[in-house]
Amino acid sequence: MCKAPFEGHGQGLYQGERGDMRDDNFSRQLRASGQLVNVTLERVLASQRMPDEVRAVLRYTLESPGKRVRSVLVLWCCELLCGRVNRDAEIAAAALEMVHTYSLVHDDLPAMDNDDLRRGLPSCHKAFDEATAILGGDALLTLAFEILASRIGEAPVAVRLIRQLAEDAGANGMIAGQLADLEAERVAGSEALLEYIHTNKTAKMFRCAAAMGGICGGGEDSEVARLCEYGLKVGLGFQIADDMLDVSAGSKELGKTAGKDARAAKCTYPSVFGMEASRRCAEKLADEAVGILEPFGAKAENLRRLAKALLNRAR
Amino acid sequence: MCKAPFEGHGQGLYQGERGDMRDDNFSRQLRASGQLVNVTLERVLASQRMPDEVRAVLRYTLESPGKRVRSVLVLWCCELLCGRVNRDAEIAAAALEMVHTYSLVHDDLPAMDNDDLRRGLPSCHKAFDEATAILGGDALLTLAFEILASRIGEAPVAVRLIRQLAEDAGANGMIAGQLADLEAERVAGSEALLEYIHTNKTAKMFRCAAAMGGICGGGEDSEVARLCEYGLKVGLGFQIADDMLDVSAGSKELGKTAGKDARAAKCTYPSVFGMEASRRCAEKLADEAVGILEPFGAKAENLRRLAKALLNRAR
Repeated sequence: MCKAPFEGHGQGLYQGERGDMRDDNFSRQLRASGQLVNVTLERVLASQRMPDEVRAVLRYTLESPGKRVRSVLVLWCCELLCGRVNRDAEIAAAALEMVHTYSLVHDDLPAMDNDDLRRGLPSCHKAFDEATAILGGDALLTLAFEILASRIGEAPVAVRLIRQLAEDAGANGMIAGQLADLEAERVAGSEALLEYIHTNKTAKMFRCAAAMGGICGGGEDSEVARLCEYGLKVGLGFQIADDMLDVSAGSKELGKTAGKDARAAKCTYPSVFGMEASRRCAEKLADEAVGILEPFGAKAENLRRLAKALLNRAR
Repeated sequence: MCKAPFEGHGQGLYQGERGDMRDDNFSRQLRASGQLVNVTLERVLASQRMPDEVRAVLRYTLESPGKRVRSVLVLWCCELLCGRVNRDAEIAAAALEMVHTYSLVHDDLPAMDNDDLRRGLPSCHKAFDEATAILGGDALLTLAFEILASRIGEAPVAVRLIRQLAEDAGANGMIAGQLADLEAERVAGSEALLEYIHTNKTAKMFRCAAAMGGICGGGEDSEVARLCEYGLKVGLGFQIADDMLDVSAGSKELGKTAGKDARAAKCTYPSVFGMEASRRCAEKLADEAVGILEPFGAKAENLRRLAKALLNRAR
């Protein structure tokens, strides 16, 4: 079902940190890992029992050409700790991608960010209708927990993954950030507020990805905690880069409506601190993320490259 | 936080099958079990970490005076199999109530059933706004899985409960039924379509409640399967009774807008077969549900009474 990952959009990632690495080893592995996420999503969706009408909605949302950054992070953190991407990590990556996708589907609704365009295609509520987008998002969120409960090898691992995902995506994580983000359109931005919103809305899902990968890789608690720190930094930097792109890029490059943050008076780093300070902040976060990986040595090279690439991507 | 269960609305349940049992043993136990669900919800909500703004939304939705029928079913099915309501059943009941409540919050949205009134109070999107209702529903759904993953004693039990809840509430359960229900407003109703909608939209959550209770009670697979059969029948009958009430009762009695099904050209038993045939069908389902409980003997008396009371309630 799925198109090649990053096809059409998100190609900036391939440029790596110097913008000239489209075909190097890092880029090839990024592409291959994204493709593995897509194949897993396709296999899971094809094998779950559900009416064709529901499957069509979920397929539409999941096969749009997303960057798969968070789910690749699951795979790579597992590989870092146990030397390979195991079956649990594939399922965890698919579950995380489902939760990320549900959040986009609901976020695009008219009552929320009201965006007709997502990943270069009509948003779910434009391709279908609002009720279907609400229910489709609900179905994706539910399915994420279902596959963790039914397809992870050992029950204690499944329970840890579900707890991590629910905590980071829920009332004290992503949802808290989204509510604060909507609320912030009515107040003056501050650094503390920005950090709160970015941490919850975005960075906790990156932390979650790193933690889930670490859990699947059988890591020690201290190793998983280190990966969580890395994930938080990368997620914060990613959001700043994303907000900078909203200012500098066009809708075609973004795959979603550009310039919306300013029109909605969103509280973002560029709007509060300007572009140059935002760039410095993103770079600092990438450096810190790379520093956190130091104890893992050479085998963390892809994660180092990912931190840099995400913050320096053309989009 | 929570009001006395059934307060204000749902009092018809206390009338039992002959309408005169407000103070008998069954009614007292029903009230006590509903109160236990409320206390558990309150305790869980108070002890979960989340911003006050999010807690206020979840509190508003969870403390509205619902009937707690599904969650009481969890408690009673556990008690049937192991002789008492254990801690796992309390958590499972709270999780099920959260999922039921999220489904009401999203169902009331303007893009769905567009109802301003729920359980006698302004719907979540009227008390707050649409974005908050979408996110609040998402938070409830996520929290249900979080408490199952973090508060159930044994990981294998937690995983079974999560799988059951996700299956029955998800893309091949409640959500499939809700999508079909919306779609059915555009087509002529048939018995097969009605049964499909009712089974998925309503009965699977009753089945889920019975199964979760059975799992918490440590039941044999055959016992849990029997409780599932009972739950499905009770759920189907409950939906028919609900649709009959939409025709015969006023908004004040219902706690939600009355007569909406007919105006929305909803596909319901009364609209397709008329009130008298609907009543006969609901009674037949209650009798079948009672019959399924036969092997459990006298200790299933409350579940028998519940089947009858739900179908004969004034609302």
